[in-house]
Amino acid sequence: MLEKVNMKETVFKEDYKKRIKPLQASLSALDGPMKAAGLPVIILFEGWGSSGKGRVISRLILNFDPRWFTVVNTQPPTPLERREPVMWRHWLTLPEAGQMSIMDRSWYQEVSILRLEEAVDDLTNLRHMNEINNFERNLTDNGYLIIKFFLHITQKEQKARLEKLDSDKNTEWRVTPDDWRRCRQYDKYYSVFDEMLEYTNTPYAPWHVISGMNDEVRTLAVFRTVNDAVHKALKLHAEKAAVPQTASGAIDPGLYHLLTMPKIQNVDLSPTLKKDKYKKHLKKEQARLSELHNIIYRRKVPVIIVYEGWDAAGKGGNIKRVSEALDPCGYEVVPIAAPSWEEKGRHFLWRFWRHLPKDGHIVIFDRSWYGRVMVERIEGFCTPEDWQRAYREINEFERQLHDWGAVIIKFWLQIDPDEQLRRFEARKNDPTKQWKITDEDWRNRKKWPQYETAANDMLQYTSTDFAPWHIIEADDKKFVRVKTLELINQSIVNRLEKDKKHHL
Amino acid sequence: MLEKVNMKETVFKEDYKKRIKPLQASLSALDGPMKAAGLPVIILFEGWGSSGKGRVISRLILNFDPRWFTVVNTQPPTPLERREPVMWRHWLTLPEAGQMSIMDRSWYQEVSILRLEEAVDDLTNLRHMNEINNFERNLTDNGYLIIKFFLHITQKEQKARLEKLDSDKNTEWRVTPDDWRRCRQYDKYYSVFDEMLEYTNTPYAPWHVISGMNDEVRTLAVFRTVNDAVHKALKLHAEKAAVPQTASGAIDPGLYHLLTMPKIQNVDLSPTLKKDKYKKHLKKEQARLSELHNIIYRRKVPVIIVYEGWDAAGKGGNIKRVSEALDPCGYEVVPIAAPSWEEKGRHFLWRFWRHLPKDGHIVIFDRSWYGRVMVERIEGFCTPEDWQRAYREINEFERQLHDWGAVIIKFWLQIDPDEQLRRFEARKNDPTKQWKITDEDWRNRKKWPQYETAANDMLQYTSTDFAPWHIIEADDKKFVRVKTLELINQSIVNRLEKDKKHHL
Repeated sequence: MLEKVNMKETVFKEDYKKRIKPLQASLSALDGPMKAAGLPVIILFEGWGSSGKGRVISRLILNFDPRWFTVVNTQPPTPLERREPVMWRHWLTLPEAGQMSIMDRSWYQEVSILRLEEAVDDLTNLRHMNEINNFERNLTDNGYLIIKFFLHITQKEQKARLEKLDSDKNTEWRVTPDDWRRCRQYDKYYSVFDEMLEYTNTPYAPWHVISGMNDEVRTLAVFRTVNDAVHKALKLHAEKAAVPQTASGAIDPGLYHLLTMPKIQNVDLSPTLKKDKYKKHLKKEQARLSELHNIIYRRKVPVIIVYEGWDAAGKGGNIKRVSEALDPCGYEVVPIAAPSWEEKGRHFLWRFWRHLPKDGHIVIFDRSWYGRVMVERIEGFCTPEDWQRAYREINEFERQLHDWGAVIIKFWLQIDPDEQLRRFEARKNDPTKQWKITDEDWRNRKKWPQYETAANDMLQYTSTDFAPWHIIEADDKKFVRVKTLELINQSIVNRLEKDKKHHL
Repeated sequence: MLEKVNMKETVFKEDYKKRIKPLQASLSALDGPMKAAGLPVIILFEGWGSSGKGRVISRLILNFDPRWFTVVNTQPPTPLERREPVMWRHWLTLPEAGQMSIMDRSWYQEVSILRLEEAVDDLTNLRHMNEINNFERNLTDNGYLIIKFFLHITQKEQKARLEKLDSDKNTEWRVTPDDWRRCRQYDKYYSVFDEMLEYTNTPYAPWHVISGMNDEVRTLAVFRTVNDAVHKALKLHAEKAAVPQTASGAIDPGLYHLLTMPKIQNVDLSPTLKKDKYKKHLKKEQARLSELHNIIYRRKVPVIIVYEGWDAAGKGGNIKRVSEALDPCGYEVVPIAAPSWEEKGRHFLWRFWRHLPKDGHIVIFDRSWYGRVMVERIEGFCTPEDWQRAYREINEFERQLHDWGAVIIKFWLQIDPDEQLRRFEARKNDPTKQWKITDEDWRNRKKWPQYETAANDMLQYTSTDFAPWHIIEADDKKFVRVKTLELINQSIVNRLEKDKKHHL
């Protein structure tokens, strides 16, 4: 794409003044409508060193109320950030509804400069670019506006600018040996940039490659592009036409190999475990998990365990038996309830990204991102397009976690309606457990058929070989506790053995 | 305190079993009532290496529902954390109401091990211990329960334990050269620990120094102490007797030298600035601020600017003029509205700690922690004891920021009621500005006298030489914009000059 940029464009001073004024006025008036529409906007700047990213950002933000935007200055990832999936740190900076993020460099760091400087291999890089494309589609589908700029300058111009900075005592500290090295290796960077631009130039988040040779040309182009894009998004929003651009109008699990799952209502719930056997097995499996926890800690394998299931299916007691076996410094239990303000204002996956484990750690989710295709679907907290598309978004999410190296274990705790009723009644009648049962539990119980349909869809469309579902017969509490522990141990062992084979 | 611990205590096995069972039962039943009472609990463990902190934590948490506690493993601060005030990272880990934090090492790291190993001088250390005492009083007053354990073992025992770990292939990785060095220098650490324990053994957060020599003795002591403390706190809560333990029953600004402030209603609001003068001055002051921003960035001076004032006093427009002069990568504007869920469940200062600048950066708060003594006082969102005590809590907070090295600049934008009315009407009649005026603004206007009293109290009790208030005559927008810029520049220059003197 770089070869198509007109690098010789200039603009007369009077002309610039005449054209910039109305753009400034228009941009300044955007914050009210943006806030009212709850439109989150990401404007990101990539480009050559000294191509004027900082300068054009400074000009751009003069048009906005400083309470409504944040400038995100992306640096190479810290050691802590390197212990998480590549996109982790970028998810965390997402603006909330009605807010704007203006990014000085972005997630394209990892597939451009860092790709060269940290010698990322082609396959990994392709995977990262796919993750970026998925990320941007996912954000766009969920109502985000992404405006991407690449500022282009020639090698000669870059050299001249660096020399100028270097020759002034007040600015010389801004030029680093890295800048000079990159300038010398201009051609290498050129081909990496160009490939990145081609591959990530999507209909939902196209690149605007702009000449950075001339200050006025650059400013005009950026102002005009931002102004047009935000106005267009606001118009779509006003017409309620902000339909997902890539929605297929039906359930879409993405292009993944899905495992065949039984219907939950057909699962045989009769298995039980006697008390003496239970004690023996539980102890054995817990001891095994303790050992494995030690190993994954040292091998830096992250483990993500998801519990879903009917109310009163025994998630809490089950999680307790698992966590008993774990070193308290190496795991976290994350209970998921209704989202907070901050969470509601962002993409539905944002709050789960915030709670991912570091490598070598275990996180247990007590309910999870599957709320999107369960409670949100049933209660109408999202649109049909939203939840239909969510199967794919979730598969993409879990695929990313898998590619990062995580073991993903998902449990559906299945009980039958009669057993649930017995447990509800028991809770109601036990003063120390009454707080565990709420009106909402009774209301949800009435929607058993809807939840059953949703659960079956969920199991059908999100059980992949990299993140399989396990349906657990949970009528007998002792049986289910041992079985989940066994499955956790087995999943970790499988993974460790696979690693061993790879190393041979 | 260490010399008083009985290091020879043991317990018979049958006796242990008999005594531990009821404690386990009692601890297991705590989560419901704790959740219902919204009691946040912090249990922290300090002590010698190999004194059994990890082991006793593992036992303790077996009694709790894993969804309701987090184990916080405190490591030495990272480079990023070192760019913030010492207590910053500890504030961020605060549990929310009804939750428990179990800390394996804590804020006492900085005044014990790190004090020795990073050669912190006595005066700085004393300041840190005072900050800790203030922090714990502050938390306790605001409803937190803090239970502090120090596990004590003898040098001989420590040596034996390290040798045992070291001789086993499975555990030798847990023993570091640091552990051995600390064991050899036992006496040095002993005196530092002892001083720390004496100085921070307060009525509101007393130390429980416990022998770590014997596993059963240690477990019993910890279980009993936690059980007693939580039950006592729940009982106080049920009796609505959870009155701040240190409240004086009147406004308490703490022992700080307070500057004399005029009453806001007596401020002469006539100053104005003509358009040509305004343009010239604004440009000059903005250019000056740009330069200064560069200097503070390089000298790593953090700057905190607080805007308070009447609705429509011009905070937004003012902040825009300031931020225009700043490098977008080096500042943040934080608008403060009603707290979110996550924020409501924690200490009122928590959300401000989250938004402190890194050193060398500027944060502008559009409204701030002064909400505690303004809107929360007037609307009854906190108790009278809460806001009366808050002046001291705020002064302590700002003192900490000052001691860390921050420049703190606080503005009260003063307008008269007639001017406010004119601005409200103007907004109402301008379609592009209508969204800026809400019913709440009109309701607040009716409470002008209450806000005036609260503002005068605030200015009287929180204007210190380290964080002075500036009352700004804000009827004329041009005048106020230039004046605040001048004051910001002046405050930064003063600070830089003081630094220079220090370096001579």
